Amino acid sequence: MMVDLQGSPDDRKIAIDQVGVTDLKYPIVILDRLHEKQQTVASLTMSVNLPHHFKGTHMSRFIEVLSEHRGEVTMRTLPTVLKQLKAVLEAESARIEVRFPYFLERVAPVSGATAPMDYDCWFIGEVNGGSDDFLLGVRVPVTSLCPCSKAISDYGAHNQRGLVTIEVRGEREAEGHPALIWIEELVAVAETSGSAPVYPLLKRADERHVTMQAYDNPVFVEDMVRNVASKLQSDDRIAWFRVEAVNQESIHNHSAFARIEWKRPSV
Amino acid sequence: MMVDLQGSPDDRKIAIDQVGVTDLKYPIVILDRLHEKQQTVASLTMSVNLPHHFKGTHMSRFIEVLSEHRGEVTMRTLPTVLKQLKAVLEAESARIEVRFPYFLERVAPVSGATAPMDYDCWFIGEVNGGSDDFLLGVRVPVTSLCPCSKAISDYGAHNQRGLVTIEVRGEREAEGHPALIWIEELVAVAETSGSAPVYPLLKRADERHVTMQAYDNPVFVEDMVRNVASKLQSDDRIAWFRVEAVNQESIHNHSAFARIEWKRPSV
Amino acid sequence: MMVDLQGSPDDRKIAIDQVGVTDLKYPIVILDRLHEKQQTVASLTMSVNLPHHFKGTHMSRFIEVLSEHRGEVTMRTLPTVLKQLKAVLEAESARIEVRFPYFLERVAPVSGATAPMDYDCWFIGEVNGGSDDFLLGVRVPVTSLCPCSKAISDYGAHNQRGLVTIEVRGEREAEGHPALIWIEELVAVAETSGSAPVYPLLKRADERHVTMQAYDNPVFVEDMVRNVASKLQSDDRIAWFRVEAVNQESIHNHSAFARIEWKRPSV
Amino acid sequence: MMVDLQGSPDDRKIAIDQVGVTDLKYPIVILDRLHEKQQTVASLTMSVNLPHHFKGTHMSRFIEVLSEHRGEVTMRTLPTVLKQLKAVLEAESARIEVRFPYFLERVAPVSGATAPMDYDCWFIGEVNGGSDDFLLGVRVPVTSLCPCSKAISDYGAHNQRGLVTIEVRGEREAEGHPALIWIEELVAVAETSGSAPVYPLLKRADERHVTMQAYDNPVFVEDMVRNVASKLQSDDRIAWFRVEAVNQESIHNHSAFARIEWKRPSV
Repeated sequence: MMVDLQGSPDDRKIAIDQVGVTDLKYPIVILDRLHEKQQTVASLTMSVNLPHHFKGTHMSRFIEVLSEHRGEVTMRTLPTVLKQLKAVLEAESARIEVRFPYFLERVAPVSGATAPMDYDCWFIGEVNGGSDDFLLGVRVPVTSLCPCSKAISDYGAHNQRGLVTIEVRGEREAEGHPALIWIEELVAVAETSGSAPVYPLLKRADERHVTMQAYDNPVFVEDMVRNVASKLQSDDRIAWFRVEAVNQESIHNHSAFARIEWKRPSV
Repeated sequence: MMVDLQGSPDDRKIAIDQVGVTDLKYPIVILDRLHEKQQTVASLTMSVNLPHHFKGTHMSRFIEVLSEHRGEVTMRTLPTVLKQLKAVLEAESARIEVRFPYFLERVAPVSGATAPMDYDCWFIGEVNGGSDDFLLGVRVPVTSLCPCSKAISDYGAHNQRGLVTIEVRGEREAEGHPALIWIEELVAVAETSGSAPVYPLLKRADERHVTMQAYDNPVFVEDMVRNVASKLQSDDRIAWFRVEAVNQESIHNHSAFARIEWKRPSV
Repeated sequence: MMVDLQGSPDDRKIAIDQVGVTDLKYPIVILDRLHEKQQTVASLTMSVNLPHHFKGTHMSRFIEVLSEHRGEVTMRTLPTVLKQLKAVLEAESARIEVRFPYFLERVAPVSGATAPMDYDCWFIGEVNGGSDDFLLGVRVPVTSLCPCSKAISDYGAHNQRGLVTIEVRGEREAEGHPALIWIEELVAVAETSGSAPVYPLLKRADERHVTMQAYDNPVFVEDMVRNVASKLQSDDRIAWFRVEAVNQESIHNHSAFARIEWKRPSV
Repeated sequence: MMVDLQGSPDDRKIAIDQVGVTDLKYPIVILDRLHEKQQTVASLTMSVNLPHHFKGTHMSRFIEVLSEHRGEVTMRTLPTVLKQLKAVLEAESARIEVRFPYFLERVAPVSGATAPMDYDCWFIGEVNGGSDDFLLGVRVPVTSLCPCSKAISDYGAHNQRGLVTIEVRGEREAEGHPALIWIEELVAVAETSGSAPVYPLLKRADERHVTMQAYDNPVFVEDMVRNVASKLQSDDRIAWFRVEAVNQESIHNHSAFARIEWKRPSV
């Protein structure tokens, strides 16, 4: 029989917060709001804690647990996967981070032309003893047009691609589960907080529309994060959020950014 | 006179934690342990907070403040830069993140052949009202050889490049400054925690030496973070650290990792 | 009616080789060797030439053509997509580059445990007047163990993850189509050219097996590209190839590489 | 004495085009046009060919040769480094690729405020038997404003950061050296081919200036590459160029691009 070094004792008396696998590519299935399944490709990080008296972790078990569930990695299945990781790896806490491109069919504002557009999304699920955590993140490209540039110039205004990143945690519902928040909802919050949405396919009538929409609706990065914050604060399902906006400035070789983190005050 | 939109009031009553510039490339000078100056190229993020009643920040002032100090960005000059940012931008807090490659001349273990090797490093400095913070980070490549693979095989053992990332905060000294910790010291801590150091230039006698050194000294990612943790805990100057080790597994297409965060208990 | 600037004449007398869209993310379906469809996510570059007398291209048409075919982007459908691009954009040449992760179910060598593993792949299709071109590329991670390190050391040998990149063009068959070469075949060529294959899931018996397999089979980067070259030269379907091997050296912070480009001599 | 495996014979009869080191970080000194030295950090690829009868290359010699010349890697010193690589590695051809950020002090158009701005640059030098080659590349960020968006909208126009990449080879002068072309000259060619230059530091009067400059000067990606091509074709020192422009479209999540490659016709 082969020696099990990982299972042997360790006497340095130092516990490890997280140990596991990272940069693992895996095909996954996501449920979208229209209750259809979307197949995509994820990059995963999976870990457990390691008590101070154990020497090592059995890394292959992460892949085995994932393989059992490969049909679906969603907010609803993550708790089961996490419980299984804890059991199989004899750990007190387990954590999974899943990053993936997610596609939504977008409709051009005037012509009605449609095409899929990609959004970088991520879930982070964690169980630690009896408590658990779930975070949803979305990165949404938007157009941002500079209010200062518009105000001080006789004509025109610099604008650029902005990236709005929103991460949320849901309030706990009666039965203890976090409130369900859809990727589609966060995309809408971000898109209505910039100068204009970004589209995969625009015909000329659409381009005219978004050009003037952006000019009519100038925002600083500061405005974008405040607009997002204001909408999320007024949504009772949101317990916590972090929002960041980054403008890939068209007049500079660096970017401008703003960031707000917020937790709903307990009543 | 041109309108100052950024300076106009805002009534959404939402303060912003950080607003500023990011992905800014800048030539900087770092002091190394031998008290010589090292010229390198940094990527910077600079930000301040924005009280809820101000609409925007004057982004160009970040660059202006940086330009005044361009000769030097070090643990000793950062407090001055941060104070100036607070003053010039009328803010309560300011934060600077500086990431740069840093070179150390390395000597091969047998032949004595020397060449410079690069280490990714970063400083994060922050002032917030009367308090301040300083964090130093270093990423160090090492060789890691798998103890399990060695133990269960008749010969050989898989090994790979591992990356050990250490971030530290220093204990406060009598006059309130954080204790000075050198990049060179953290590199040494990381390199003695893997199976063997990594070198820029090895002749055949050196390659023989490091091959056998690694085989004689197998470590899991778990061992690497514990080895680092143990050394830092016994160094009285360290108030807090976070250490992460990532093995770019030579037998897998994903990586293994481990992570420990620690704060010195108050006496 | 809105002005069509792109369609207006240009008098600089400078033709453009390629004009189009790049960094376009799109969900695609690939046919795999077992004749099943694999859904994945691609990054696309699509372009046409632009004669000197035209001012601009209608970029939205690239997305429209792609959307018509979104069900499938394969070696067999690419010619149709390219022909349509030429027609719709009134161009003489058209080119598509499709990059995507592709998953293969891999079986561990001793335990038989299975899990999917990802391979970066790409197609480049081009039509130019009456002629056409098709290139298939695959990047395959392998284990490489250094022959020099093994030969000069009393025990052990440094090894690391190596990346073998193969690009091929097929010989023309009777009816003019390039010979069909499967991703699965190029993966096999690469994996049998390193010291040992890389797997997504290995149990301890498997780890023992691949550790000793790699030690028994040391290769330089030079050997890896020659091994691949030798196999491809003896495969009559191959008209041209380029192979590159990169070793992420476990004893250095830089990589070693080798590269061969070859064209079958005409008879 | 240790065995020299790399120097042993190989009987597969397959020559290798390039073998060497890549992703090597190294501090370098560049000569700028004002004849001052600029210290920066390079990423290098260095290689030689390998005749079919040799088994391997002595990789450490690349680092040794580089170390001898570390004070300077320029168009004028590269030929010497390449000759030395050929000699030390007993090869017929040698090739060096050096990529580095290069800083130029930029002056804001109205306020005169100055700050350094970074440009990604590269040299590729090659000797092959008696012939040699030298290529200079520069990537320059610019503002590009869409002519179509301006023409079809009642007000405003979408604009964005564009990246103009220029690579050139110089004509041979009387004594056989390629004509000297400065990074500063290619930066100027790129910046005058977009809608407006991009600056590191702009005060409000400057922002007003570049906003209107861009609006007055709309360009498609097609125009940008043609503008660059036209300037380079009329410069007798240029023997060959490749120019690419990529617009990070502010209304899309993908980019638009155009590309021209050109060789001066022999007289």
